[in-house]
Amino acid sequence: MEIEVVFGKVLKEFRKERKLSQEELAFICGLDRTYISLMERGKRKPTITTIFVLAAGLEILPSLLVSKTEQKCGL
Amino acid sequence: MEIEVVFGKVLKEFRKERKLSQEELAFICGLDRTYISLMERGKRKPTITTIFVLAAGLEILPSLLVSKTEQKCGL
Repeated sequence: MEIEVVFGKVLKEFRKERKLSQEELAFICGLDRTYISLMERGKRKPTITTIFVLAAGLEILPSLLVSKTEQKCGL
Repeated sequence: MEIEVVFGKVLKEFRKERKLSQEELAFICGLDRTYISLMERGKRKPTITTIFVLAAGLEILPSLLVSKTEQKCGL
């Protein structure tokens, strides 16, 4: 499975854990809702900067988003 | 300091620790040397996929690249 697809699943999990809608996360992060949706479906590859923005919105460390993705990738 | 600038410094540190030239890291990663140079100078924002490729080339976990960047950002 492509890394951005795995990352998208991780992003969705963290968002749902915090009971946030895509709309709410997008607003918090100052991003467009459709961009959140595209990332969650693995259709967009977030940059390092976007990863930091998403993590801040989810109130977690950026490296946690990446390490969960690693684990799901079997690294 | 911008996140991509901090990331670039972290990337350069890991590359130098492994005594790799930009040329060598680019070859290992299948990336262009100029792209490595641009990232190290904070002129490009790597995507999640490129972060995984760089980490594989450096033989470290992608989350380590991100956590070192976090620390330098004071997170």
